[in-house]
Amino acid sequence: MTITRDEAWKAIALHRDPTLEELFAADPDRVDKLATRLELGVFEQGGVEHNSGILFDWSKTHLTDELLTDFENLADASDFDTMRARLFGGEVVNPTENRAAEHSALRGVGQDTSVEEAEALRERMKLLVGAIHDGAMGEVKHLIHVGIGGSALGPALAVDALARDGAHVDVHVVSNIDGVALEEAFAACDPAATLIAVASKTFTTIETMTNAQSALKWLADNGVSDPTGRVIALTAAPDKAVEWGVDETRILPFAESVGGRYSLWSSIGFPIALAIGWDAFQQMLDGAAAVDRHFRDTDGRANLPLRAAFADLFYLRLRGAQTRAVFAYDERLRLFPDYLQQLEMESNGKSVTVDGEPTAPTAPITWGGVGTDAQHAVFQLLHQGTHLVPIDFIASVEAGDMLDPAHHHILLMNCFAQGAALMAGKSSDDPHRNYPGNRPSATILCDDIDPATFGALIAFHEHRVFAAAVMMDINPFDQFGVELGKEIAKKIEAGGARFDASTEALLKAAGVG
Amino acid sequence: MTITRDEAWKAIALHRDPTLEELFAADPDRVDKLATRLELGVFEQGGVEHNSGILFDWSKTHLTDELLTDFENLADASDFDTMRARLFGGEVVNPTENRAAEHSALRGVGQDTSVEEAEALRERMKLLVGAIHDGAMGEVKHLIHVGIGGSALGPALAVDALARDGAHVDVHVVSNIDGVALEEAFAACDPAATLIAVASKTFTTIETMTNAQSALKWLADNGVSDPTGRVIALTAAPDKAVEWGVDETRILPFAESVGGRYSLWSSIGFPIALAIGWDAFQQMLDGAAAVDRHFRDTDGRANLPLRAAFADLFYLRLRGAQTRAVFAYDERLRLFPDYLQQLEMESNGKSVTVDGEPTAPTAPITWGGVGTDAQHAVFQLLHQGTHLVPIDFIASVEAGDMLDPAHHHILLMNCFAQGAALMAGKSSDDPHRNYPGNRPSATILCDDIDPATFGALIAFHEHRVFAAAVMMDINPFDQFGVELGKEIAKKIEAGGARFDASTEALLKAAGVG
Repeated sequence: MTITRDEAWKAIALHRDPTLEELFAADPDRVDKLATRLELGVFEQGGVEHNSGILFDWSKTHLTDELLTDFENLADASDFDTMRARLFGGEVVNPTENRAAEHSALRGVGQDTSVEEAEALRERMKLLVGAIHDGAMGEVKHLIHVGIGGSALGPALAVDALARDGAHVDVHVVSNIDGVALEEAFAACDPAATLIAVASKTFTTIETMTNAQSALKWLADNGVSDPTGRVIALTAAPDKAVEWGVDETRILPFAESVGGRYSLWSSIGFPIALAIGWDAFQQMLDGAAAVDRHFRDTDGRANLPLRAAFADLFYLRLRGAQTRAVFAYDERLRLFPDYLQQLEMESNGKSVTVDGEPTAPTAPITWGGVGTDAQHAVFQLLHQGTHLVPIDFIASVEAGDMLDPAHHHILLMNCFAQGAALMAGKSSDDPHRNYPGNRPSATILCDDIDPATFGALIAFHEHRVFAAAVMMDINPFDQFGVELGKEIAKKIEAGGARFDASTEALLKAAGVG
Repeated sequence: MTITRDEAWKAIALHRDPTLEELFAADPDRVDKLATRLELGVFEQGGVEHNSGILFDWSKTHLTDELLTDFENLADASDFDTMRARLFGGEVVNPTENRAAEHSALRGVGQDTSVEEAEALRERMKLLVGAIHDGAMGEVKHLIHVGIGGSALGPALAVDALARDGAHVDVHVVSNIDGVALEEAFAACDPAATLIAVASKTFTTIETMTNAQSALKWLADNGVSDPTGRVIALTAAPDKAVEWGVDETRILPFAESVGGRYSLWSSIGFPIALAIGWDAFQQMLDGAAAVDRHFRDTDGRANLPLRAAFADLFYLRLRGAQTRAVFAYDERLRLFPDYLQQLEMESNGKSVTVDGEPTAPTAPITWGGVGTDAQHAVFQLLHQGTHLVPIDFIASVEAGDMLDPAHHHILLMNCFAQGAALMAGKSSDDPHRNYPGNRPSATILCDDIDPATFGALIAFHEHRVFAAAVMMDINPFDQFGVELGKEIAKKIEAGGARFDASTEALLKAAGVG
């Protein structure tokens, strides 16, 4: 069957939703069909080998056999197979910038020469990480990692998730230009035992370079004789780092084809490797690679990131949901919603197709929080509010803590209870105490939050966002929307430019401009 | 003129929007009309007296003179004056629970007897805070504050915003049932010099009581001979705290009429007062009281929280925005979006009117982040995405840091530049590089993030949310939507209950239930 993209969307739009409970009643195999465990392979931790895997349960969404078929047709009509082959083949998938998007090559899955180049760069990083661990830069207790956006969110998330126990080095990720952020890191670090990582793809990002300068000044003010000698540069513009004064031996480059929001696998991941150690960092890459292979080699609804994208597009485009929420029922993943926000909104927050035509709603606004905290803050609206919000729950079978097992037990109970309650609702004659139910959620249940599972979780979301972009016919790899604000800030900085009356008044009230 | 609520909404719905630039071009007084400074009074800091104030600039929203008139009619038709008088008069404004909502009385503005009762309780807290500062409980370097939702978000935000420099005590707010959160606090505290605050309105919240038990165990395991003697209870159920073993001298009660999400002004604010000192805590209350008086005594569009609610309802109900975003261009306010999320979504995330009738969209999903970080993460969607997102920017004229002034200068430049760019846009022949503009934002420019201004900022939002609720005819003070999940979690815990096939399978996969 060959149908057009428009015909595929029209077929999807015809569906009328049974309730979730009706869907379960109608199909005893629903869970088997829509809850699928992905095996990531065997990983060693603390001398013990174990299988790692993740259960992806999409059964409490409104996906049906028929809807899945129609979405598979949409994927076909969108040349999904071709686009996916181009992604992994290192071909141009970012036409506006004429670039490939080779983050999977960093994990060993991609075009051969790109994989080899990534391996060579990774080997260089491995040597530096090893040398620092071995004392080549003296005593190193702290790393202040300055970077912003994609150069900060991935490292911050990974370090927070994976380096809580027994970290080799205490890492502080500083992104905000507000000096308060940097001062907080200073207060926690001993300058004599601190390295500074400067992470910027272009090595010109104003926030990062300003923070880097102030970090050097702090080292100098505190008696470090060669502050620049304490800097590791993580960049796709090594020449700029040399100009800035960093010795080549401490520059860890990455490829131009690695986008900022996909860069934690590259040398931008240096603080992760320094904190958790090289073997664990490699496991993170290997876990992601397992998802790469799954995504590359699996067709249709059995492809888990693609299946998730089907549900995402259904709620976004057919049911009018402007948002989707993710709740990590695990303190180690408290930064995951922030990470996902950038990944999804910067990738797919576009208004035009690849060909420049206006298009239907794109990326949902991605928000969320950590369970069980969020239950006491935003779940009121999710249970009884007026907006449709598809939800992802993320949890781990293994506990991250060593306290009374009641902690983790209650945590998981609550996670599952919320999904059940959103679906089942509860009717009452008192409208104020009535819960309509039929509210969709998906659950991602990890065996553990170990490096491999963590890597897989991130890669799953990268591919999910890519799959949605392909079906929406938009380019997920450019980000021209971030340029305009920067331009105007520069214009203000340069002085003399005139703005709207409100902005002029604000500049005056603040005594700047 | 007497019109009904329906007629008022219909009049509003007739408006067709000029662009923001057209609005500025048409009215040279637009900024004067819509950007208003609120004086909070004179406050002393470090021996110096200074005026504190906040500029509220709503001129870059689509509010017009006509729209403001129609919204004023809506407020009239909604008996706004009466409802406001009931709020400040300590009358029942939460009919489903037959309760008043007396958070303003905690600041000294409200019904006389409630204000007096609050003062008495506050005096009790002041004495305990003073005694601890004076060494009555031995050396106290750390406070682990356990609480969740309203018992956590306010203290966490206030301590993070106001206690960065020279805090009397190092406060760790722990909310999540996940033991990882508590372990993080343990790692940062010396048990011999640590107090535990247990904050729960009912003193039965499962997360809080489980964390409290584990905190006591940690003290005991680390040689503290009388762990319960290190506990301060913050609760509206002092009898329950006594039962649990806390000595009455260390129980700080608050009134039943104080809702969790409005409770940082009560004894739930104990960690704030302990960290920043009593005088500063009192200034926080006084700053909030200045907004109380403004909100109580000002009519129509000149009432700033009411004016903000007009814009909120316009975008929510007339322009279909399911969300609104807040970006704090100040690291000290990085937790503000989380706080606001609860305040707005738990208050107004309802589906029925006070009379139990189904209603149009209620509370927007409130999300956001910290500037400039967010520019590198989510602003792509805000500039070029398809969803309408009204935005609030919050900034401070005074810097929070002592580094090179370039940090704060660039921070403010970027804040104002984003508002200007969202409004002006920039057209390009290349649709991928086209920015449509006409995207609304408001700017809240504080003189400083000092205790008074901080208190005022929070009170402004409390009243804004209340004003919106009145015009939507919903009860912002109950939260039945949080109960259902709790019930189901208890049912699972009790065992034997059956759930949907997906939930059963998840329980099995996780080995719980």
